[in-house]
Amino acid sequence: MAASFDSSLAPRAGRSFEAAVTPFAVVRKVAIVGFGTVGCSVARILSEHPHPSLRLTQVCTRSVERRRVSWLPSRVAWTDNFDVVLASDADVIVELIGGLDPAAAWVRRALACGKSVVTANKQLIAHYGPELSEIARQHGCRLLYGASVAGGVPVISGLQDGLAGDRLSKISGILNGTCNYILSRIEAGGLSFDVALKQAQKLGFAEADPTDDVAGYDARAKLAILVRLALHTQILPNEIACSPITPIHGVDFAYAKELGCTIRQVSRAELKDECLFASVQPALVPFSSALARVQDSLNLVMATGQYGGETVFSGHGAGGDPTAVAVVSDLISLVKAGKHVTPSFAQPLPRPTSNDFTSRHYLRFTIKDCPGLLAQIATVLSKHDINIDAVLQHPGYERAHLPFVVTLDECPNSVVERAMEEVNALDFLVKPTLNLPILG
Amino acid sequence: MAASFDSSLAPRAGRSFEAAVTPFAVVRKVAIVGFGTVGCSVARILSEHPHPSLRLTQVCTRSVERRRVSWLPSRVAWTDNFDVVLASDADVIVELIGGLDPAAAWVRRALACGKSVVTANKQLIAHYGPELSEIARQHGCRLLYGASVAGGVPVISGLQDGLAGDRLSKISGILNGTCNYILSRIEAGGLSFDVALKQAQKLGFAEADPTDDVAGYDARAKLAILVRLALHTQILPNEIACSPITPIHGVDFAYAKELGCTIRQVSRAELKDECLFASVQPALVPFSSALARVQDSLNLVMATGQYGGETVFSGHGAGGDPTAVAVVSDLISLVKAGKHVTPSFAQPLPRPTSNDFTSRHYLRFTIKDCPGLLAQIATVLSKHDINIDAVLQHPGYERAHLPFVVTLDECPNSVVERAMEEVNALDFLVKPTLNLPILG
Repeated sequence: MAASFDSSLAPRAGRSFEAAVTPFAVVRKVAIVGFGTVGCSVARILSEHPHPSLRLTQVCTRSVERRRVSWLPSRVAWTDNFDVVLASDADVIVELIGGLDPAAAWVRRALACGKSVVTANKQLIAHYGPELSEIARQHGCRLLYGASVAGGVPVISGLQDGLAGDRLSKISGILNGTCNYILSRIEAGGLSFDVALKQAQKLGFAEADPTDDVAGYDARAKLAILVRLALHTQILPNEIACSPITPIHGVDFAYAKELGCTIRQVSRAELKDECLFASVQPALVPFSSALARVQDSLNLVMATGQYGGETVFSGHGAGGDPTAVAVVSDLISLVKAGKHVTPSFAQPLPRPTSNDFTSRHYLRFTIKDCPGLLAQIATVLSKHDINIDAVLQHPGYERAHLPFVVTLDECPNSVVERAMEEVNALDFLVKPTLNLPILG
Repeated sequence: MAASFDSSLAPRAGRSFEAAVTPFAVVRKVAIVGFGTVGCSVARILSEHPHPSLRLTQVCTRSVERRRVSWLPSRVAWTDNFDVVLASDADVIVELIGGLDPAAAWVRRALACGKSVVTANKQLIAHYGPELSEIARQHGCRLLYGASVAGGVPVISGLQDGLAGDRLSKISGILNGTCNYILSRIEAGGLSFDVALKQAQKLGFAEADPTDDVAGYDARAKLAILVRLALHTQILPNEIACSPITPIHGVDFAYAKELGCTIRQVSRAELKDECLFASVQPALVPFSSALARVQDSLNLVMATGQYGGETVFSGHGAGGDPTAVAVVSDLISLVKAGKHVTPSFAQPLPRPTSNDFTSRHYLRFTIKDCPGLLAQIATVLSKHDINIDAVLQHPGYERAHLPFVVTLDECPNSVVERAMEEVNALDFLVKPTLNLPILG
């Protein structure tokens, strides 16, 4: 994955050994920092299929004695001290510790020493990507992060290189495998969110604390990176509105099915009149859409361009081996292109941002059944100039806790939200109304 | 699309002007050769969204006066003489004339002058890719061909860069939009092949002479390119067995549906025990498969790797604008990476090839109904040690021309073909048996 904010032709610092050898004979010394699942997979690929220009020389990890593996050659040095890596002759640091602290500081220091960095760290790139790339440029090295979004799916190189000739205006995708797994389970078994989450945790598809995944924080960091590359817009993760998948219940899939849809956690962004619309939220997607067909923990990214129309990338977005493929591909890309990559010309711009997408809407009310309630809800909607498209009520639910659904014609989300504030105050509402967009 | 067999760091010939400018200020002068639909789209993208490092300076086309457009700047020189382009100061030739003659000779001459070439010509690359890349390498320029397979879908860069870190063992896809359109029409309308073809021709989805598409010649050229990049195996198009989609009828979709499948023209290749299996042919694919969901003229490529599992690329595989996106992406890639791309290390190898895939099979017999015919067919199959899985016979067909279906357990295609030679000689057969693989 030729993914970098670009470092390029600036003079190189402190790595004079290359001057002595012909370019074809350059061997890059690689240090892996962080030896969890992905780090271990990267080491395994590099030893099972050695690349003539890549040599793993160092592993830096906590608990060296516990993590040391016997299948790596004895020339690989193990350390728990990042300063040892910095002082070594490693050319490339593979950062796989994740999170912002200490990763950000370590990557800054590595780049400032002229060591290129390959990382799978979405939070790092979403928060500090442009700053780190500028440091790389100044020090004649490179920052690559093909593994930071959608793991093994080569979407970063696809957007940055393969679709560079298009004008992309829209990006949407399923970027969090945990949410997709949980929603697939709710759909298949008619389960509640809590039961599906417990199943996912048991099978290792969700963390003990699943907040980052289910609240959308993980996906919005990835979306921020895609927005920068595809829509050339600078945005930070916390500027992207997200809503959790926790209120989704089996009943919503039953109603969605009647509407020809399923429910997915959708990350999407769109450029419209120089404003960036972006959000991460559960949404109804038609069965005929590529988004609907993403099962279990797969990832998918769909890019829409002025000239090329819709292009779709999908595959395994997480897991040690797929993520390691993206890391090793970046390492090979470093070897192939060397330092001589000129900057891309489309730098990300700041733009006004909004989450106020216009779409059809799905409202699921949970009510204590009583006469006249639909009239009251309809009155509020009408007051806000919102048109009802359909009313769906399946039989068989208890009257004290009755879910029913109203779908709305296209209107801005902010209008629906204002109306829902009034509706949620009505005394027959048992819980707040679930408001989901119905995607086109 | 960073697609090249690699040219790289060899000394440059005859282009001394670049020495005088700093690398950041390099502007590449681009000549478009062939001004049909794609050429026109490339020119339009370059003028609607000018790239600071690309300048269109020349268009070479037959019938200049008829094809000249008013919206290109007057500095663009028009000619119908390729020698004028060769003698000009153009740095990059965009070859869009298609076919082998005179394209191959022209591209050879351009590369030998040190001019890089970007091409959308699948036949050229499938037949002469390695030779042309070697000429580019010797003359310090590059050959890029991201548009040669699947138009706007960035599958070449995806395989060459994004998945470089994996060990790919299998590739399959829908590479011909015309066939996919025709098959989609047969499926939707229960049509015969001939009627669907006429519809496709009327709508511009099929040529007046559709042989290249329906016989599989177009798809196998693309498959040969993918095999070289993904499976590192050197193969020529005519070494890939292909069978036409012409015998497919609406009745086959009806029977396939009963088996949970639809029918697509599938291009596939697989490395197994250092042998390459490859073919282009109509096949039954399960509705649950990504291949089944490719509608109308879209393209899709699925790559399977040891570490990353299945990765899917899909989008618009043909048409002026999508193909032009791939061409312009290659031009941008040239500007970004310049000459400084070292060769990839995985050179394509010659390997023994075969089309003798093992799979389940769908046999559709067309018979004159008479007693005992199933027994006779079963006897032949049993003699060849072939197990029958199911027999399907829908009511309502005339007895003199009765289609019925037998599905077989997994066995090599060669065994089925031998048995069919005997079956086709039985006197109640009205036409040769249709034998299609059922993909897993």
